[in-house]
Amino acid sequence: MSLRFRNAERKDTALLLRFIKELAEYEKMLDEVVADESTLEEWIFDKQKAEVIFALEGDKEIGYALFFHNFSTFLGRAGIYLEDIYVKPEYRGRGYGKAILKKIASIAVERGCGRLEWCCLDWNKPSIDFYLSLGAEPLDEWTIYRLSGEKLTKLAI
Amino acid sequence: MSLRFRNAERKDTALLLRFIKELAEYEKMLDEVVADESTLEEWIFDKQKAEVIFALEGDKEIGYALFFHNFSTFLGRAGIYLEDIYVKPEYRGRGYGKAILKKIASIAVERGCGRLEWCCLDWNKPSIDFYLSLGAEPLDEWTIYRLSGEKLTKLAI
Repeated sequence: MSLRFRNAERKDTALLLRFIKELAEYEKMLDEVVADESTLEEWIFDKQKAEVIFALEGDKEIGYALFFHNFSTFLGRAGIYLEDIYVKPEYRGRGYGKAILKKIASIAVERGCGRLEWCCLDWNKPSIDFYLSLGAEPLDEWTIYRLSGEKLTKLAI
Repeated sequence: MSLRFRNAERKDTALLLRFIKELAEYEKMLDEVVADESTLEEWIFDKQKAEVIFALEGDKEIGYALFFHNFSTFLGRAGIYLEDIYVKPEYRGRGYGKAILKKIASIAVERGCGRLEWCCLDWNKPSIDFYLSLGAEPLDEWTIYRLSGEKLTKLAI
């Protein structure tokens, strides 16, 4: 069955949070999820800091993607950064992950973006093999650094 | 001498491009810079996909930072992603890099962002030591994947 897509709306916040928690559980990071409906509504639908699409089989949402624009100074233009891509376990193995990635790639190309990027956990071999099969390049020589919480506040003062 | 900051304006595009190329040269990636004044002007000042601040000693721009908002579904809110931070070589060793990072951290906190993140090349030990001294956490278990050029177009079709 082929997928269709729709943009998430404010009324979808509870469903989105449920999907975020399911993805976090798969990534063994559920304890890191502090998002709630109110923060998601504020930052996605009021402040518009991310875009969300749902993938539907028939009338049922079976996965989602959350993305935002990043920027490459080398290219001099924006790219798309895919923060989350998720397909419910019972719908895997049908090419839906690829269909969602294809949809995001088409949005990137339509908007004239130079790149599509995302991160993957190093132990997630099935996903890595899939990404490599699409021709994605692992940026092995770069490491992400993060400041958050008290460390961030301390530097800011 | 203490630094001051100003937001980049459209008339600064040539200066910004010069700084971007100097940074790329330091990173041994100058051949990857295809940005020109016209792409930078379109994507930064028309489409507003990134923000740029210059650091000034007296009246002279001695460095810059380019950043944009990213998004964490686990936190349910935006963060700031620092794409470029640069201090001209002759002004290094005076704490200006830290002052720029401090400025970006203060913007993140002011805006209620949960995180400040950036990438560093694995061979750049002086920078890594500096980031670790601030309490930044290296996300060693994640790798960035990138689709660009023909591979991106092919997936999009």
